[in-house]
Amino acid sequence: MIIDCHGHYTTAPEPLQLFREAQKEAFKAGKALPEVPHISDDKIRESIEKNQLKLLEARGLDMTIFSPRASAMAHHIGDEAVSKQWTSACNDLIHRVVDLYPQKFIGVCQLPQSVGVPIKNSIEELERCVNELGFVGCNLNPDPSGGHWTSAPLTDPSWYPFYEKMVELDVPAMIHVTGSCNPHFHTTATHYINADTTAFVQFLTSTIFQDFPTLKFVIPHGGGAVPFHWGRYRGLAQDMGLPDLSEKVLKNVFFDTCVYHQAGIDLMLKVLPSENILFGSEIFGAIKGVDPTTGHYFDDVRRYVDQSEHGTPAVRQQIFSSNAQRVYPRLKPFLACRAC
Amino acid sequence: MIIDCHGHYTTAPEPLQLFREAQKEAFKAGKALPEVPHISDDKIRESIEKNQLKLLEARGLDMTIFSPRASAMAHHIGDEAVSKQWTSACNDLIHRVVDLYPQKFIGVCQLPQSVGVPIKNSIEELERCVNELGFVGCNLNPDPSGGHWTSAPLTDPSWYPFYEKMVELDVPAMIHVTGSCNPHFHTTATHYINADTTAFVQFLTSTIFQDFPTLKFVIPHGGGAVPFHWGRYRGLAQDMGLPDLSEKVLKNVFFDTCVYHQAGIDLMLKVLPSENILFGSEIFGAIKGVDPTTGHYFDDVRRYVDQSEHGTPAVRQQIFSSNAQRVYPRLKPFLACRAC
Repeated sequence: MIIDCHGHYTTAPEPLQLFREAQKEAFKAGKALPEVPHISDDKIRESIEKNQLKLLEARGLDMTIFSPRASAMAHHIGDEAVSKQWTSACNDLIHRVVDLYPQKFIGVCQLPQSVGVPIKNSIEELERCVNELGFVGCNLNPDPSGGHWTSAPLTDPSWYPFYEKMVELDVPAMIHVTGSCNPHFHTTATHYINADTTAFVQFLTSTIFQDFPTLKFVIPHGGGAVPFHWGRYRGLAQDMGLPDLSEKVLKNVFFDTCVYHQAGIDLMLKVLPSENILFGSEIFGAIKGVDPTTGHYFDDVRRYVDQSEHGTPAVRQQIFSSNAQRVYPRLKPFLACRAC
Repeated sequence: MIIDCHGHYTTAPEPLQLFREAQKEAFKAGKALPEVPHISDDKIRESIEKNQLKLLEARGLDMTIFSPRASAMAHHIGDEAVSKQWTSACNDLIHRVVDLYPQKFIGVCQLPQSVGVPIKNSIEELERCVNELGFVGCNLNPDPSGGHWTSAPLTDPSWYPFYEKMVELDVPAMIHVTGSCNPHFHTTATHYINADTTAFVQFLTSTIFQDFPTLKFVIPHGGGAVPFHWGRYRGLAQDMGLPDLSEKVLKNVFFDTCVYHQAGIDLMLKVLPSENILFGSEIFGAIKGVDPTTGHYFDDVRRYVDQSEHGTPAVRQQIFSSNAQRVYPRLKPFLACRAC
């Protein structure tokens, strides 16, 4: 079985985006927010079957842990009410996809974060998505400002009530920023990657996992720059008198494989413990084209994992399946259901 | 010959730092700035011989392209007058080191950047350092705010007068941020690495090298996350309809080898053209300890290059010597002098 831990509904039907535009207009004009439109099952099927589902099947993947389009979360737009309405609309749509394809998609929610609003205000939506919609995790934005990094770091105690709820519900968070509104940072090429590195170092240099020994995070896009600079981070921990990374962060932090070339995946598999790597390909995601040097899609990550010189069958089994089941304990009933 | 393109005077004698503290105090109190103290040749020799010079010799390196301590540039502190005085003091001290060890150290300057001050105000110090002190390049800070990223991106026309002067003087700039005052970003573990990635993507997605075909930048710390995500950047360029990276950026952008483990250097040498890699080790820099898994210093980068499976003798010669000579044309008289 191959579980892709990182897929986004980047192909959601057009009415969702039209609603978002209307919502932004209403907010700007100080008017009441528009109603969330109904989107038909047929529209949803069409948007999924010719895109994500087609690729899943073509690439021999069994299921995707699926969340709303990350770049559209845009927690810096509007206010808390705008973010709440947009978030529940996006999460409800993910739930519709999961209901239509329960063998193929498992839900992960976005959160109604908003600039200057405490993260504890996102607990209610997390509970709704996990307890009522059957979601197995959430995407947590370490920078609701969209590239200005004006909030408190992830290790600040203000985040702790949310972590308490994550632990109680036994769900992990993927660290995932959204679109950048800082002209320095290209959204998918810079902001995503920088945020991954930023979160890792915050975790490394804090006591967060002493405070929450069972808290779990997935850092996407291969962990940003982290595996490439593994020596720097090992050395930094040692210079700071911290425990080894295996002790300090690797019981709690996991990395997905959204790295779009063979050499990058080879490096990950070489330096990171195989227990800490989760298969993810971010489809439909950042890069859509075919690599002319291989003749395959850049984001066909399964090939890189299959072909890696560091990937024994046991390692591939961990990366493709068993690690995800460990990190997302709430996957269990879905997998049991598939088996029956 | 082995040229290390990335060394900082992190061991400058104590009076320099005491002066800096006094300068900051004076600024805060609204008083006249203190005078720059005289530091004796003996103090300078002591600070160099037991540190950088000792390591150069122990590691069989011939010379270092040497600049002031990057984390102490702190362009966000004080105002333009403070930054100017601090910068000229630091650059003058580099010149003293070069004068004492002309066979071993070549100067690169910091710039008197300051938040909200146009970069063209740094031209005078660049000219002084190149024309009067014999420096061969500069360190350019893409984020004078120290982690808040409030200025214009490097590709904004406001930077162009400075690039015109770089081209005229035929000197490259190393992209190098300074200490972070944003609690999200650890200086050496996060801010340095993120800034490298940020600069690369700015270059990739702009017309800067169409506007300045001979402008050259060195991106340190292995280019941040760039080589690890080489597939993402190749794919992004293709998706955006841009020319291949070799055409779009690799005639103008070079990467140093400040990556502190074998697998990272192996990746660099595998994915980047060997013409684009310059040996650099950032000593004394970010990581000071010995890697217990190898028994050697994390920052003893020469070992990784020597031992890389992708490093033929011809490739090593490029990385250790000929690329630096091409990127820093003003090295020529120093090398001629060494030969006589």
